[in-house]
This record gives sequence, structure tokens and C-alpha cells, in this order.
Amino acid sequence: MNNTDNRAIGIFDSGFGGLTVLKEIEKKLSNENIIYFGDTARLPYGSKSRETIIKYSKEIYNFLKKKNVKLIVIACNTASSFALEALQEISDIPVIGVIKAGSRCASRESQGNILVIGTKGTIKSEVYKKEIHNINNNLNVYQQACPLFVPLVEEGMLNDEITTLSIKKYLDNYINNIDSILLGCTHYPLLKESIKNTYNKNINIINPAEEVAEEVFNTLQKYNQLSNNKNRKIEFYVSDDKEKFIEYGSLFLGYNITNVEEIDIEEYKKA
Amino acid sequence: MNNTDNRAIGIFDSGFGGLTVLKEIEKKLSNENIIYFGDTARLPYGSKSRETIIKYSKEIYNFLKKKNVKLIVIACNTASSFALEALQEISDIPVIGVIKAGSRCASRESQGNILVIGTKGTIKSEVYKKEIHNINNNLNVYQQACPLFVPLVEEGMLNDEITTLSIKKYLDNYINNIDSILLGCTHYPLLKESIKNTYNKNINIINPAEEVAEEVFNTLQKYNQLSNNKNRKIEFYVSDDKEKFIEYGSLFLGYNITNVEEIDIEEYKKA
Repeated sequence: MNNTDNRAIGIFDSGFGGLTVLKEIEKKLSNENIIYFGDTARLPYGSKSRETIIKYSKEIYNFLKKKNVKLIVIACNTASSFALEALQEISDIPVIGVIKAGSRCASRESQGNILVIGTKGTIKSEVYKKEIHNINNNLNVYQQACPLFVPLVEEGMLNDEITTLSIKKYLDNYINNIDSILLGCTHYPLLKESIKNTYNKNINIINPAEEVAEEVFNTLQKYNQLSNNKNRKIEFYVSDDKEKFIEYGSLFLGYNITNVEEIDIEEYKKA
Repeated sequence: MNNTDNRAIGIFDSGFGGLTVLKEIEKKLSNENIIYFGDTARLPYGSKSRETIIKYSKEIYNFLKKKNVKLIVIACNTASSFALEALQEISDIPVIGVIKAGSRCASRESQGNILVIGTKGTIKSEVYKKEIHNINNNLNVYQQACPLFVPLVEEGMLNDEITTLSIKKYLDNYINNIDSILLGCTHYPLLKESIKNTYNKNINIINPAEEVAEEVFNTLQKYNQLSNNKNRKIEFYVSDDKEKFIEYGSLFLGYNITNVEEIDIEEYKKA
């Protein structure tokens, strides 16, 4: 019996944010090849309709399938919310999203009071709140949109006074009433230390990406599909502006990205 | 001889920012009907290619022409940069852009040292710098991208401590060497007072929208096309998310917007 599968794991996002998910998978599964796609030509996804996001996600699914991946991770909150089920319906390989994983982790770890933070779109959709309540309706879920966090992360201002003030602006009202903060935006893990350092309190900060990495590991193990690559490869594909991806991507990952290729994602409309 | 023309002025932008241009035109030309289009489904324009922006601008041109406007203002820096000439070529009515107007004003008013501030895209393109140097090559033009300003404006944080710190972060290095600041992003006029209040110095802050309003007035006067409407109307059209436009738009204009309609701009591909 063959106990290994050296095909790659596929990960996609609207742009750079999903790299925080890649980072956790890279760490947890060190023998796995990874193919990452960032839809930089069509970001942001947050302001687009469900129908459009499903269409885009299917194109990306077709692209990743052509690359012969064995599992797909939707590393984008909007696409996880709108397109997870649509992809699972058409897919013959496992598809994993960040929202179910993050909500599961929050429900398991919280002692009763969770604050979900995210972009305006994610918070307005209440997707984490609903998913957490599906698991445990007794948990108190507070929500707060933090629109300055994405530009602060993208500016690399992780330890700036402006960032500390922004954290206080958004979180001060909740901090004494909660035990956990769920990072409901893939940019926010870069602010985890800054948030911890702003408050003199033991707060459990939940990064859904860690739970996603666990789920990927467990799924591959269950189906005997873990790799035994000695020199795993990570490849990056984007739909626009390779240079910007290299610049921002290196900030997200903490090392220099090199192998990035620009593709025309609309060519993958048909499987 | 007929000395009036009561058709509307058309204004377009990728979203909300162009409302600062509308505001100046509204003030300067109080008898004019105005039709504003914000391409909220396809924003931001800054990250898209020249070809795409020209295509989008032509669709919007067709829409505004169907609305029978007498003059069109491109109230968007990216579209002014990429599509002004393309629209002027196909148009039988005047088309006015923010970049030429802003650069003309800066060249005329500066005593020699200008700082252009804008989004990363605008600053990287050097479009204001080139245009100013086309007019007067002896002016020193400094440039600074200010990526936090748009989210700060959209959050309504005009007088927040975070905004003051952000202004200082971006402008401190230049402030002693310049006499003028050109606001090269349509969101920035909302920060004009905050910038003035941050420094104890007489700085000339140039809002290209004021020069655009002058140019619109002069153009209509020249062709005997000023209106004599007693009760002028302002209508708004967007390609997505009317509610968000009403919320943000009211912040930009300082009064409540009501008459906003959502349209499918892709229907205007053909004239």
C-alpha cells in the first residue's frame, strides 16, 4: 500500500493575506509542496457579490486542479464564506476553508466571551458569529471591524505608535469582557504580538490559520496522503503585478519570495 | 442667441473620492444640474492596467452621454491619467481631468518647492511630477505616498490623534523645504484642515478640485453653456452597494445623499 502522495497542496486568496495561512501550513507540514495563487488582478473580494466570488473561485479551482494538487485551502475569508460549499460540490479532492476552522477553534478554546475582529465586510456578514453559534449557542460573540489594520500591516508598521493607538481605539471597549480574540482577517496575524503587547492581560488570540494547518495535516494523514519530499517546493502564481506581490509577500512571510509567475486566470473559466 | 444650456454636468470616479470634486463644482456653479457616477463595483482603479481603465472610462462616457450631459469631469486620478486623451478623442463635448488642472494650479501658485502627496499608484506613476515639469521644469517636485490617509478619511477620523501622527509620519521630512502641498488624491481634501493644524507654518495646500471647478465654469461660459436652473438637481449613480455609497458619500459631502441609483455599467459597453 502506498502511504505517500507527493502532489502539492493548493492555497488561494484574493491577494497577499492568505500568505499567513501558507505560513502555518509551511511550518506544520514541512515535507509538502505548496502552490499558492493570489488573485491580485481582482482584489479586493470583500466588496464583490456571492455570485462573482463563486465564479472566480471556480476558475482558481480549475487552475489548481490543472496543477494537480491533492487538497485545496481557501485562505480568504470572503471566498471561504461564499464559495466553500460550491467548490466542495464539484471537487474530487478535499477543500478546506478558514471560517469553519477558525470558528471551531474559537468554540473549543473560549471560556465564554469571544471578540471577532475583521474587515467591514466580514463583520457585517456576521459569518464567524453565525458559525460559532452553530457550534455553541451559549458563547457570547462580540464583533468589531478594524479597517485601519490592513493598511497598517501592508505598510509594515507593526510596532508603530500609530498601530498601538489603532489597536486601543478598536479593542479598548471589549478587552475587559472577553477571554479570546478571533483574528477574522488573514492580515491580522501579523498584529498578534502588537495586540498582546498593548494589554497587560492574558488574552487567547486565535489565528484560524493554525487550525487550518491542523485540519490539512489530519486530512492528509487520514487518507495516507502525506508527502515524504526531502526538498519541498513552494510556488507562487498571481493574476497581476508580480513585483508588488514579491514586495508584500516577503513582508508577510519574513523571507524573500522569488518564484512568482503571472498568469491569466480568466483562461481557466472552463475546467 | 441662446445663452443657456440646462443639460447636466457629468462627473465620474471609481467610487467616493470624486465627491470632493463634485463639492467644488456644486459650490462654484450653483445653477448646474449634476450627474455623478461612482464605479463602486470595480474600484479601486489604482491597481488596474491602462487598457482596463480606458475600457471602463468609455463605458462610463457612454452612460453619461445617454444621460445627455454637456461636459464631463474625470474626478479620478487614475482615470484622468490613463483615459483623458482617449475620451477627448471620441467626445463631442468637453472632457476635463483632475491632473492637468491640479498641475496647472501648482505651477502657477508655487514659489518653487512643491510636495505632491497621493496613493502609492499615483506617486509611483509620477504623473503630477511630469505634468508640473511639462509646465515649468524649474520647480522642485517632491513626492510622498500616504497609504493610511484613504482609510482614515473613510473612517471619518479627521481630527483623531492617529490622523495627526500619520500626517507627521508622512510630511515631517518635507515640511521645512516646501511652500505648497498638492493633494494628489481625491480623498485628501477632507484632511486639508488637519494638515494645516498640524504645522505652525503658512503652507499653500492645493486641491485640484477647485481648479477643476474654475475650468468647468470658464469652459461653459466660453461656449455660452451656463445654466439658469432655479432648482438644480444632483443625481448619483453607482455600479454596486448603494447603501455604502450613501453612508460614505454623506461623509464626503457633509449632507445626506438620497437620490442614488444602482446601474449595470457593463450594459454601456457599446455607445
